[in-house]
Amino acid sequence: MSRVYNFSAGPAMLPLEVLEEAREDLLDYKGSGMSVMEMSHRGKVFDGIIRKAEADFRKLVGVPDDYAVLFLQGGGWTQFAEVPMNLTKNGTAAYIVTGNWARNAAKEAQKYTKVVRVASSEDQNFSYIPDCSDLDIPEDADYVYICENNTIYGTEYFQLPNTKGHVLVADVSSNFLSRPIDVKKYGLFFGGVQKNVGPAGVTIVCVRKDLINPDLPDYVPTMMRYQTQIDKDSLFNTPPAWGIYVCGLTFQWLLKQGGLAEIAKKNEAKAKLFYDTLDESKLFKGTVRRQDRSLMNAPFVTGDKDLDAEFIKEAAAQGLESLKGHRSVGGMRASLYNAMPYEGVVKLTNFMKEFEAHHSAV
Amino acid sequence: MSRVYNFSAGPAMLPLEVLEEAREDLLDYKGSGMSVMEMSHRGKVFDGIIRKAEADFRKLVGVPDDYAVLFLQGGGWTQFAEVPMNLTKNGTAAYIVTGNWARNAAKEAQKYTKVVRVASSEDQNFSYIPDCSDLDIPEDADYVYICENNTIYGTEYFQLPNTKGHVLVADVSSNFLSRPIDVKKYGLFFGGVQKNVGPAGVTIVCVRKDLINPDLPDYVPTMMRYQTQIDKDSLFNTPPAWGIYVCGLTFQWLLKQGGLAEIAKKNEAKAKLFYDTLDESKLFKGTVRRQDRSLMNAPFVTGDKDLDAEFIKEAAAQGLESLKGHRSVGGMRASLYNAMPYEGVVKLTNFMKEFEAHHSAV
Repeated sequence: MSRVYNFSAGPAMLPLEVLEEAREDLLDYKGSGMSVMEMSHRGKVFDGIIRKAEADFRKLVGVPDDYAVLFLQGGGWTQFAEVPMNLTKNGTAAYIVTGNWARNAAKEAQKYTKVVRVASSEDQNFSYIPDCSDLDIPEDADYVYICENNTIYGTEYFQLPNTKGHVLVADVSSNFLSRPIDVKKYGLFFGGVQKNVGPAGVTIVCVRKDLINPDLPDYVPTMMRYQTQIDKDSLFNTPPAWGIYVCGLTFQWLLKQGGLAEIAKKNEAKAKLFYDTLDESKLFKGTVRRQDRSLMNAPFVTGDKDLDAEFIKEAAAQGLESLKGHRSVGGMRASLYNAMPYEGVVKLTNFMKEFEAHHSAV
Repeated sequence: MSRVYNFSAGPAMLPLEVLEEAREDLLDYKGSGMSVMEMSHRGKVFDGIIRKAEADFRKLVGVPDDYAVLFLQGGGWTQFAEVPMNLTKNGTAAYIVTGNWARNAAKEAQKYTKVVRVASSEDQNFSYIPDCSDLDIPEDADYVYICENNTIYGTEYFQLPNTKGHVLVADVSSNFLSRPIDVKKYGLFFGGVQKNVGPAGVTIVCVRKDLINPDLPDYVPTMMRYQTQIDKDSLFNTPPAWGIYVCGLTFQWLLKQGGLAEIAKKNEAKAKLFYDTLDESKLFKGTVRRQDRSLMNAPFVTGDKDLDAEFIKEAAAQGLESLKGHRSVGGMRASLYNAMPYEGVVKLTNFMKEFEAHHSAV
């Protein structure tokens, strides 16, 4: 067996310890005689798994009691509809558009509320985070929406917008659990787990319960009402049990190493190594304004498409996988999520230097 | 390791060979250096997995080209809304109510269409399938809806309703892939996979493409439009990749042993052993009209709640797990899905005889 360093933007690497534990218990979870994939979601064993996962998540992130933590299905796109469906009261929402996902979220929300785009960085291909210190937010806005880390463009908010007293909603799919957050600053945040937490098919929603409109329009499906799942502790119907279990293993892995403050240090160290290498390079260039560079997703280019392709191909041959950039930016993208070891970034940056030396010499 | 015989109604047993293969490849899928839980859903390796899963499903079930096969999220409850959202044209639908799930589906559908309940077995606690040979189906009905196997009550349709030319829609979650079906008799069928196919978190929808209303109301979320997923071959957003992979292993397991005709023989043999034992017993009684007995879920009672509880407890001590019945019926329920080996039913029926002998002697 030879594991690669997988720089995919998601689904992405999971911690080796998590995978090993999942494998160890795959046929027989802790003497239950069953796989987690086989057990009733109404039984004691699975109840222990999901309740511990929720408790560990609350501990890890610091979730106050007036927030619900939900394990749902359907990914970000489902939340793009569920957020406006459930939080709309006045009928206006403010969206800050910093990439494809925020743009899609705003478009989907228009089915359910009036959407005001209060800021955007589309003018420069989303290569920066706009100044959000003094936005013109409608007074009756039910919430202000951001995508906190932009997987495709490689930007990240390091300061949350000044919402002027309005509730903040954040899609945190691609910087989920990568650093400590202050939950009280959010009314709701959600993340698909498949980048930084667990296997695709689980979406975690953390929502301040009093924000949910208790009187939703009839057309809102039962499954898309947060209250449905709150009332049943995420067990309204059969949940994605295996995915929740693996997320729980990741929570334990994070707690064991000291929680989000510790993983943040490691992520900073990896990002520093990568961006220092980039800044010292004469061949490779970043595509993002320096102060907005994501710690999770780092796009970079040589400026020569053939050379980019050559780099990606040679890297893959060395076990540095999935470095191809998104078509909207081109070039390369290195995703440096929690589970990417420092050694992976060392190997990548060394390879970048070798590649540069080789291609300068030619 | 000691595996139990798990008679849970779902999630339920998976074939041991499927679990073993999933474990074998968990850290490194076929030399890719990654787990299936870690790989990009846009990459070649996962594309191979999902396309093979779809091809194998089509082969196994005999799906004609004018039907789409979709791998979705959200379970039956999501389909309870998606079916009327997508198939409503005239604005009327006929529902046959044979249990909780059909009842819930009908109630959810009322958000989107006029629902006419054309038959029901609620008068006798859903213990039979009503005569559906000459129902009063509204002429403008967009479809006739059934739940083909009723997990809770243990009834199953062995003859499909006479829909009088209307399209048939079936929830097949709990008899999915348990016997051959004639796809052309259905306009749409769907199943949560967590009973007979794979891990919870995947719903397979098979729909005749021309039935989908191309002009849906604005409020239908992008994610709940079948066309969204048809256009992208189930890859509109990140799919529940691990679950789809395990379903694919089950499809291969079924094909290897001769397909649905072969598994049907095995399921008939298991059900015959169980029901023969039940019919010979003086202690245990079935709760379902004989000709409607499900081959998948067999509820039974002693008529004495304490004795039922004692049976369930003693059975569990012998590795016969999750035999407790649903609260709507009480007593016991043995679910005999595809992955339950014949030996499991032998062990259960032997234990029933021993228990009866012991408790008659006392």
